Amino acid sequence: MKIEIQHGDILTLDDENRIIQDGIVCIDGTKIIYAGTERPKNFIPDKIIHAERNLVMPGFVNTHCHSPMTMFRNFAGGLPLQKWMFENIRPLQQYVTEDEIRSCAKLAYIEMIKSGTTAFAEMYAWADILGEIALDIGLKALIAGSYGKDQGLAGTTEKSVILEHSKKISERSKGRVEEGLLLHALYSVPEDVIRNTVELAKEYGFRIQIHVSETKKEIEDCYEKYGVSPVEKLAELGVFDVPAIAAHCVYLTDNDYSILKERHVCVSHCPVSNLKLGSGMADISKLDKKGITVCLGTDGVASNNNLNIFKEMNIAALLAKGIYCDPTVIPAEKILRMAVKNGYKALGIENSGCIKAGMNADLIIVSTKEPHFTPITDYYDALVYSGQASDVVLTMVDGNILMENRELANCDEEKILAEAKIASQRILSYRS
Amino acid sequence: MKIEIQHGDILTLDDENRIIQDGIVCIDGTKIIYAGTERPKNFIPDKIIHAERNLVMPGFVNTHCHSPMTMFRNFAGGLPLQKWMFENIRPLQQYVTEDEIRSCAKLAYIEMIKSGTTAFAEMYAWADILGEIALDIGLKALIAGSYGKDQGLAGTTEKSVILEHSKKISERSKGRVEEGLLLHALYSVPEDVIRNTVELAKEYGFRIQIHVSETKKEIEDCYEKYGVSPVEKLAELGVFDVPAIAAHCVYLTDNDYSILKERHVCVSHCPVSNLKLGSGMADISKLDKKGITVCLGTDGVASNNNLNIFKEMNIAALLAKGIYCDPTVIPAEKILRMAVKNGYKALGIENSGCIKAGMNADLIIVSTKEPHFTPITDYYDALVYSGQASDVVLTMVDGNILMENRELANCDEEKILAEAKIASQRILSYRS
Ligand SMILES: [Zn+2]
Ligand SMILES: [Zn+2]
Repeated sequence: MKIEIQHGDILTLDDENRIIQDGIVCIDGTKIIYAGTERPKNFIPDKIIHAERNLVMPGFVNTHCHSPMTMFRNFAGGLPLQKWMFENIRPLQQYVTEDEIRSCAKLAYIEMIKSGTTAFAEMYAWADILGEIALDIGLKALIAGSYGKDQGLAGTTEKSVILEHSKKISERSKGRVEEGLLLHALYSVPEDVIRNTVELAKEYGFRIQIHVSETKKEIEDCYEKYGVSPVEKLAELGVFDVPAIAAHCVYLTDNDYSILKERHVCVSHCPVSNLKLGSGMADISKLDKKGITVCLGTDGVASNNNLNIFKEMNIAALLAKGIYCDPTVIPAEKILRMAVKNGYKALGIENSGCIKAGMNADLIIVSTKEPHFTPITDYYDALVYSGQASDVVLTMVDGNILMENRELANCDEEKILAEAKIASQRILSYRS
Repeated sequence: MKIEIQHGDILTLDDENRIIQDGIVCIDGTKIIYAGTERPKNFIPDKIIHAERNLVMPGFVNTHCHSPMTMFRNFAGGLPLQKWMFENIRPLQQYVTEDEIRSCAKLAYIEMIKSGTTAFAEMYAWADILGEIALDIGLKALIAGSYGKDQGLAGTTEKSVILEHSKKISERSKGRVEEGLLLHALYSVPEDVIRNTVELAKEYGFRIQIHVSETKKEIEDCYEKYGVSPVEKLAELGVFDVPAIAAHCVYLTDNDYSILKERHVCVSHCPVSNLKLGSGMADISKLDKKGITVCLGTDGVASNNNLNIFKEMNIAALLAKGIYCDPTVIPAEKILRMAVKNGYKALGIENSGCIKAGMNADLIIVSTKEPHFTPITDYYDALVYSGQASDVVLTMVDGNILMENRELANCDEEKILAEAKIASQRILSYRS
């Protein structure tokens, strides 16, 4: 299919950061073949989209989430972390059926599509199922499977099964969905499982997703047990020998920064979750200055309560300034790069994250027509500080339109919402 | 006009915090005459609104804003405070015409209406004009006029003019819009102007709006000049002898807390602005524990960049937990009271802020139909952590519908947007 987007104000996010006003984007199949102001000759589109001078830009990447946790949205908020996790969330997870995982993941994925996310890193059990759903719904994803039962999660546990499924997904998706491996955290996974997971990752080129240095308690416990920081211990265990996404990284030593930089670890900053759970405030300004790749994540909705990268961008930007009492910390344009380009980098997806010929057609259109977006005196500030999820009027992945004018193209939103509600109600009925 | 809202899930915010599921709200003229589950006999509505099990609740109050600053939305972000204010914003303000104030204020007011705000405290020059616009557009407002030219702002400066206009507005609006007085801040207003303003306020029962203890520099300068804190000095000058809204209050001593409590000062917490300008993080948990009335404000959009109480609620709630690294700090229900009841209290508006018979019909309907709001396992958490401005589908003030299904009832949105854009462009053309 050939699509021409006309009259867009294009935020290319290319190396020169070009902004093309009243521009044209031509898409042929999965690729952008032109972005500029001159109508290319010989290009006959099957579909024309009039962007009405709204923003055309690459889609957002959510680099840390636990999608099926939509079942717990707005549930058990405001509790101490241990009580929240071990008395409310965890005990209920055992009752969840495979169908309910499907329903709640679909809810998560349509929320992401409607807020302009085009790719995400998934960290949950049931990797096989989640990969299939991501594939069906049309998003790009890096799905993490768990290797070894001791992680306390259901899902694939045998090496052969992981490999077989990964191969199947990868082939079927033509690379749109890839599988990787998850380690919940240093404090929750036995050392031998960590070592086995790393070995498997090294052998087959899997990426690893892991929670790192999220809370003060985690740091204290780690020093008590190992005499080193979680980052140091994980490095010693080889976790950072493969491409890794380290979620949170709220508490870091100078040596931790060096390790993360040297091992090219991508840090998934989850400001909303860190605040809501009372974990703390990560210092993305320092991470960025040290040359570490910072990307953004929502974490699960149980601690957010959205899957909305606009919100993470806004709060990441505000918090970075607030921590230093300095309004010059982290310009909006840098926040946008974290939400887009750094995200794709973390997921290992190449040729996405900017609007130019040859790139994948992973893009969104953001309406600037609402009062809250008027006037736009700076595109980057407008997006980061004025933009809202509801401004997204088109979401496209690999040239496929997943949402247009707030209507989902490939799925029945009402049905998904209804099924997720029923699933959530049934699961929460087990609460004591 | 008689209106019946059917099938709403009603968050009453009354003293018992009742939530009425699938309820009815009946409105006669400006008043709510019934809220419950039984259809009242003899009530024949002129209009029926089917709430589709969305949330029916009192509207939000924005207790600190500078509306015409929409002209500077997304402009000059990320600069140091002094450079931002004195090299960018202030020099341009001299070029603003009365018509441009009108255009930019209208933009602000429709943004507030579309995000569920039903009342606001305005702090800007041109109080006479802003009062008229608020009146025309249908919102409730406390508009602050400046008394004395030395505040460096245009607008009403003579006592007789202030009194005359205040009387006119109050009569025409039947109390919907009231005028008060503003003092920009202790550091920016000469002592004699402060004393005169206080005297006028005392004599005629005006409320005072003032910026207090916003930045570290302000505190340091104040100690150097007066040997006491800004709160202490303002108390000495009599500012808190009249009902006052103190915006920001980021840096407070123990004695400051005592003064604010004893003098019944309402603190307008503006978390987004405080973060964006690098001012700091106010401690609303401590303010609340000390028994001080905390309400929420956006400040001007130049430092926000929205007029959206959903965003302030969300960030206020998150930040309060983040500061203490404690997820139990400030439950969502308390945040909602700050955004609603405490706001009305700060503005001196009685009989608004809860849904029950006899109260003013100042209410909103919040759609819960989007994926990001699904499921609702707790109404308060859902509003504060999942809710977005775009979820507001109806805004009503004194029984008048100002917005329904995202369409403004009394004004031409397109025209307002176009005029504000032109105004902003012309003013910004003077930037050096
Ligand atoms: Zn997580
Ligand atoms: Zn202010």
